[in-house]
Amino acid sequence: MLSYLLHDFIIEKHIKRALEEDIGYGDISTDYIEASEHTLTAVINSREEGIVCGVDVAKKVFKILDKNVEINTLIEDGEKLSKGQDIAIIKGNARGILTAERTALNYIQRMSAIATMTHKYVQELEGFKAQIVETRKTTPCFRIFEKYAVQIGGGATHRFGLSDCVMLKDNHIALCGGIKQAVEKVKKHISYTHKIEVETDTLKQVEEAVEAGVDIIMLDNMSCSDMSKAVKIINHRALVEASGNIKLKNLKEIASTGVDFISTSATIVKAGALDIGLDIY
Amino acid sequence: MLSYLLHDFIIEKHIKRALEEDIGYGDISTDYIEASEHTLTAVINSREEGIVCGVDVAKKVFKILDKNVEINTLIEDGEKLSKGQDIAIIKGNARGILTAERTALNYIQRMSAIATMTHKYVQELEGFKAQIVETRKTTPCFRIFEKYAVQIGGGATHRFGLSDCVMLKDNHIALCGGIKQAVEKVKKHISYTHKIEVETDTLKQVEEAVEAGVDIIMLDNMSCSDMSKAVKIINHRALVEASGNIKLKNLKEIASTGVDFISTSATIVKAGALDIGLDIY
Amino acid sequence: MLSYLLHDFIIEKHIKRALEEDIGYGDISTDYIEASEHTLTAVINSREEGIVCGVDVAKKVFKILDKNVEINTLIEDGEKLSKGQDIAIIKGNARGILTAERTALNYIQRMSAIATMTHKYVQELEGFKAQIVETRKTTPCFRIFEKYAVQIGGGATHRFGLSDCVMLKDNHIALCGGIKQAVEKVKKHISYTHKIEVETDTLKQVEEAVEAGVDIIMLDNMSCSDMSKAVKIINHRALVEASGNIKLKNLKEIASTGVDFISTSATIVKAGALDIGLDIY
Amino acid sequence: MLSYLLHDFIIEKHIKRALEEDIGYGDISTDYIEASEHTLTAVINSREEGIVCGVDVAKKVFKILDKNVEINTLIEDGEKLSKGQDIAIIKGNARGILTAERTALNYIQRMSAIATMTHKYVQELEGFKAQIVETRKTTPCFRIFEKYAVQIGGGATHRFGLSDCVMLKDNHIALCGGIKQAVEKVKKHISYTHKIEVETDTLKQVEEAVEAGVDIIMLDNMSCSDMSKAVKIINHRALVEASGNIKLKNLKEIASTGVDFISTSATIVKAGALDIGLDIY
Amino acid sequence: MLSYLLHDFIIEKHIKRALEEDIGYGDISTDYIEASEHTLTAVINSREEGIVCGVDVAKKVFKILDKNVEINTLIEDGEKLSKGQDIAIIKGNARGILTAERTALNYIQRMSAIATMTHKYVQELEGFKAQIVETRKTTPCFRIFEKYAVQIGGGATHRFGLSDCVMLKDNHIALCGGIKQAVEKVKKHISYTHKIEVETDTLKQVEEAVEAGVDIIMLDNMSCSDMSKAVKIINHRALVEASGNIKLKNLKEIASTGVDFISTSATIVKAGALDIGLDIY
Amino acid sequence: MLSYLLHDFIIEKHIKRALEEDIGYGDISTDYIEASEHTLTAVINSREEGIVCGVDVAKKVFKILDKNVEINTLIEDGEKLSKGQDIAIIKGNARGILTAERTALNYIQRMSAIATMTHKYVQELEGFKAQIVETRKTTPCFRIFEKYAVQIGGGATHRFGLSDCVMLKDNHIALCGGIKQAVEKVKKHISYTHKIEVETDTLKQVEEAVEAGVDIIMLDNMSCSDMSKAVKIINHRALVEASGNIKLKNLKEIASTGVDFISTSATIVKAGALDIGLDIY
Repeated sequence: MLSYLLHDFIIEKHIKRALEEDIGYGDISTDYIEASEHTLTAVINSREEGIVCGVDVAKKVFKILDKNVEINTLIEDGEKLSKGQDIAIIKGNARGILTAERTALNYIQRMSAIATMTHKYVQELEGFKAQIVETRKTTPCFRIFEKYAVQIGGGATHRFGLSDCVMLKDNHIALCGGIKQAVEKVKKHISYTHKIEVETDTLKQVEEAVEAGVDIIMLDNMSCSDMSKAVKIINHRALVEASGNIKLKNLKEIASTGVDFISTSATIVKAGALDIGLDIY
Repeated sequence: MLSYLLHDFIIEKHIKRALEEDIGYGDISTDYIEASEHTLTAVINSREEGIVCGVDVAKKVFKILDKNVEINTLIEDGEKLSKGQDIAIIKGNARGILTAERTALNYIQRMSAIATMTHKYVQELEGFKAQIVETRKTTPCFRIFEKYAVQIGGGATHRFGLSDCVMLKDNHIALCGGIKQAVEKVKKHISYTHKIEVETDTLKQVEEAVEAGVDIIMLDNMSCSDMSKAVKIINHRALVEASGNIKLKNLKEIASTGVDFISTSATIVKAGALDIGLDIY
Repeated sequence: MLSYLLHDFIIEKHIKRALEEDIGYGDISTDYIEASEHTLTAVINSREEGIVCGVDVAKKVFKILDKNVEINTLIEDGEKLSKGQDIAIIKGNARGILTAERTALNYIQRMSAIATMTHKYVQELEGFKAQIVETRKTTPCFRIFEKYAVQIGGGATHRFGLSDCVMLKDNHIALCGGIKQAVEKVKKHISYTHKIEVETDTLKQVEEAVEAGVDIIMLDNMSCSDMSKAVKIINHRALVEASGNIKLKNLKEIASTGVDFISTSATIVKAGALDIGLDIY
Repeated sequence: MLSYLLHDFIIEKHIKRALEEDIGYGDISTDYIEASEHTLTAVINSREEGIVCGVDVAKKVFKILDKNVEINTLIEDGEKLSKGQDIAIIKGNARGILTAERTALNYIQRMSAIATMTHKYVQELEGFKAQIVETRKTTPCFRIFEKYAVQIGGGATHRFGLSDCVMLKDNHIALCGGIKQAVEKVKKHISYTHKIEVETDTLKQVEEAVEAGVDIIMLDNMSCSDMSKAVKIINHRALVEASGNIKLKNLKEIASTGVDFISTSATIVKAGALDIGLDIY
Repeated sequence: MLSYLLHDFIIEKHIKRALEEDIGYGDISTDYIEASEHTLTAVINSREEGIVCGVDVAKKVFKILDKNVEINTLIEDGEKLSKGQDIAIIKGNARGILTAERTALNYIQRMSAIATMTHKYVQELEGFKAQIVETRKTTPCFRIFEKYAVQIGGGATHRFGLSDCVMLKDNHIALCGGIKQAVEKVKKHISYTHKIEVETDTLKQVEEAVEAGVDIIMLDNMSCSDMSKAVKIINHRALVEASGNIKLKNLKEIASTGVDFISTSATIVKAGALDIGLDIY
Repeated sequence: MLSYLLHDFIIEKHIKRALEEDIGYGDISTDYIEASEHTLTAVINSREEGIVCGVDVAKKVFKILDKNVEINTLIEDGEKLSKGQDIAIIKGNARGILTAERTALNYIQRMSAIATMTHKYVQELEGFKAQIVETRKTTPCFRIFEKYAVQIGGGATHRFGLSDCVMLKDNHIALCGGIKQAVEKVKKHISYTHKIEVETDTLKQVEEAVEAGVDIIMLDNMSCSDMSKAVKIINHRALVEASGNIKLKNLKEIASTGVDFISTSATIVKAGALDIGLDIY
């Protein structure tokens, strides 16, 4: 079974699509060297330190191409990875292993990079109440892996998408003519099982949001001094999320304002890929 | 119709999946403020300079949610974008526009960042024969958009996946016991419509590859001095691709070795997202 | 565009599957009478009074089979329907209309029945604070239409599925060894954008739940006298949902206990189908 | 293997969609209590008497979420279920069991209710030649389970959909200008492997249908006295199906007219859900 | 709308898959010559005489790649085609036309060849009662087009697949221990809307089948003299189908035996492809 | 695992669609004789000699319907098949075997016929340099099996589809105003991992193509005398492919012209089906 939050039968569908994307009508290199006549032992190995993420996803890629492949994973999602450390040992028919290699690495490199990047933000926030969360700025059709990796890296998590929390952003508010009006409309329809978050740009809007009775107030692109004031105005009547212009170097300063959550797309968007490779023995 | 290389009916399938990923069972924010009772005019605007990419993809996202929306695009894929420049004007029912916003931006931000990053590499190579190309280190299920963006940014392009060119990498060669043996096996099966590329780590392997009669030789992680020697050994008997440890700052030095192509995953993996937003008027 | 909460491109996929289910490899009756050589005018008409729901869904069924069909809808989802009232007039090629008939009616009959049944519960609760909501006891792969119909009938709405609100039911609690332990575990992981609901069977559990700091407390199969006590114990520190053994005839009594929500699967499961037909003119 | 008529690989696709519908991006309750660290034994138990149906479908739901789960079924589709009787014992990882619970129950509750309702009609017809059959008034995308349940409950079965028997209904006949004309057109095209059924409203139409040489004549909404006359007119030259206004209480009277089949949507549409639950031990 | 039996929304799905199969990640020839900057007029033209089939399918292929393309069809499915005759004129953007060309032709060539081949069989049977029908020996995932083409060619049609008529073949009968036993089992379950066909190898089996009361008797690989005897034995108590070793040259002899239907896979399997091309003006 | 070039998880998707096509909502013959209560042993046997192809595909069909079935294959793809030879022995539940029979045979009959036909062309070319290859005139959605079968029959292989080699055909050239212009445009965009092939009709065009520097030159519908001249003109500066009007009887003459490849759709389109059946023991 795949780890926490990811369901095997859902992941499987994604991986099959990724394999179709890469394989096309056939892996002509691997098939033309007649790889299916060999067995081999391969090792997934990290050339960089970080936090590993996607071990079971990578394992599943090999399994889809060859259900008889034997995989011994040496580390679990969320654990520290040192440079040169082995992640998994794979034994089986050479055909499946060589064809799966790139796709498996594409998942684990990307996911580990996000977990690693998130972990840096989390470490920076040590000692503070504030937690780091991600946004909906994700790669189309790849969100579940990206949001999962943030959590594996130690991040808290925001709503997944448009259906699990109301979030009134600038454009929603503009359309309704103000926070008060927008929240009133929402309250006519919203399920009692859902929360309301509102984006605010000014302290005046913060006050409006508090009065409207929302659950979470996002402070968008405010100065740290304004954020401090906002936290005081809100005074525990709503959770507070800082957003916009978040950088590793200003994280502590933002956290010092007393906000509960700091949201940034950087942990996903700027993570890049951890250097992980596959070696044959 | 979507631009160069992307087919409308294929893109449509991807976008619908991306919208399902984001919308879940409904955009409760937009629906609860009764947005469908309003029409509005919105503008996609860039907060950063770069090369725009994904204009027609973004347009398609809005069209899928509301086929009556009117979209006026002001710039085409591949054109320069200055800070503050408008990309498209969108008029229509507020519901579709607000629900589509994030997904549309997720495509165009990511694709424009890749085009922009690629463009920097291309500029660095001005005056050299060498061209920049991407690799297969792409986000699973998002490759077509990433490879397209590299080309829009001015890059040349590598094979798309496993079925359109034979590429014998370290692990294939190891399995066969050498370049000569691997290439011989491939030549028994390969279509005459396909080329063979071989990865080499040493000058000895370069010689082997030339003798084996391959079309392209990749020099993997070689020093510039070795690459110069390799180019001389090869002497136009194959195309030459430099790979491994490619950085913007060593690009010119590598190009000076006389290689034909320089491949790097950085233009895709490290591109991040261009800051592009949607404003309501 | 389809009405409130349902997105056209998602509905379309469901309807196409439903049409494939009914049509198989062809509607041999309609095709064999050479219906495609005729045009006709048909009317969707209700043989029963109730609340109409699914008008746009039914319309979409006809549109999928013949994009040139003209449909004039005479009433909107949520409006009262008297016996004999016309719902929509359809003009077009006879082939599409006759093949679509049963599938279109299957949606609108089922959805209108749910809206009608819900409306009865809503009327019964007039003057009370308590609102009627549905559960997750829905027909597999048909939930979105069923939950939508409840809302059209005037019901409030519960969480959609397993990912938009934590709900700790008897089996979750048993596994953790108690409400306190279960809530503690959840609080380590939960997003701040989500709420926690807990199911309770006894007043002791109600107290435990309040202490654990949950957002919603469900009173499962309690007597009205116990529910009154529970409401007092909770004392606005959480929302209160009554569940289990809910019937139209005991609804007022339950509402009198002061609960905020009354959840029942009956509005969906026992709704049956409203008698709606299609006549040719 | 799944029972009679349902194929495992087809059912699997439906169940996966149903699970995706319920799970969304994750079962946050079950995952947040870290259920995957526990194993448990659960029992599917009926709180009501009836005819069980969907045992293997429910089993498959658990298997899809955890292929290592052990399930011991204690009863087979079609058998009598007494109040309190256990249906299956499930041992395995708690995560899969808790996440599957609702979806598995949604199938078995609905299917068992249909089998139970059908069984009541079947019992009422004991001693008569007439058999009960269902119609095409089914839940979109759920027909295969509903029609299967009717058969498990002892019902005979009508055509599955539009492609396996010609059925000329009122609107087909109106379009052609009469039964004679409609049947003539059909006979030009129909495969000899298919039958023709015609709907009739009057005895005059019954005579027309007999003369046209159809295989089955449906008597729609006729009085019992007219149905008796129709049976005599037909005189074994076609099978006879009674339809319209069928109720449990008038079933014997209708059967006494000598019809061969009585079709009603009630066994599916009004069946509701049998009260079946899952308990942890 | 597509012609008789084929539904536009079902065909569309098939064509999109076929286009994905051919296009892969892009039509590099057409895109690299920058075809999208040109418009052109093309003509689908037959280089061979025959019966045309698939005109609307081919049209749909072009429409999927470019919804603005204008297509003027000059002939309808089932009409005679002389050598050199134009089938359709296509005006539009060059990109869509050139990319669609091969796929469109692949449908129409194959379908027209089947219609043409069937027509030859039909002509051979002129004056006889017997009609030609096809079998289930079809290309996997292409049956609907093949069976449609047989009908367009003037053939009658057999059951579509396994669910629309019971057909007891040698292996079913062997398993049950004889025709009588097999038919008895079927009659316990079969819907009254379905027929039963039985395959027989000997006159003794023919008698058994008649006694068992089946609707259709297939005479498999019998001599013409035995078929004549079989027709007499059956004496209008069942329809009679001749099968096995059917050739154009022995068709009249077989028809002379008095059978009602002659089934052969040859009209589909041996049809090849009609020579149809696309020319640019 | 499936043989050379075909991936199990891709094949599986195709076979499931083929089974759905044939089974519809159920195999009523097999289910109504209660086949699931029997086990049996069946043998796939060839009634004709040829080259076998599709053994593992057929095996997979049975496995999908019953994962417990035991299959012993007696011969591998590409081996000679004599008349009456057994291909595989299948033991298992009768239900899966009988329902799978036709679909399994439809794959193996078609694929073996293509391999057999190709083999005849290959034998005819013995002693010549020229190799036989197939074209893109394939059955929509069935290409992978058809191109695989050509290779199993000993053929070389052409490009798979539109994305793995540039091929400038008459219509591309006409659009650009000549071979020179078309090739120049392509060279601006093409990946260095791809080749360019050009279709020529005259010796003048052959010269143009050579000058344009293409990799492969196709001689379309030329006389053998012209082809000889073309081979001399080209003089090893490009590979040479003969195409158009290729027949088994003129193959040697064409090969004598010195061309490298002879492409024909006949090996696929005219192959028909090898007579292979399934017998019960």
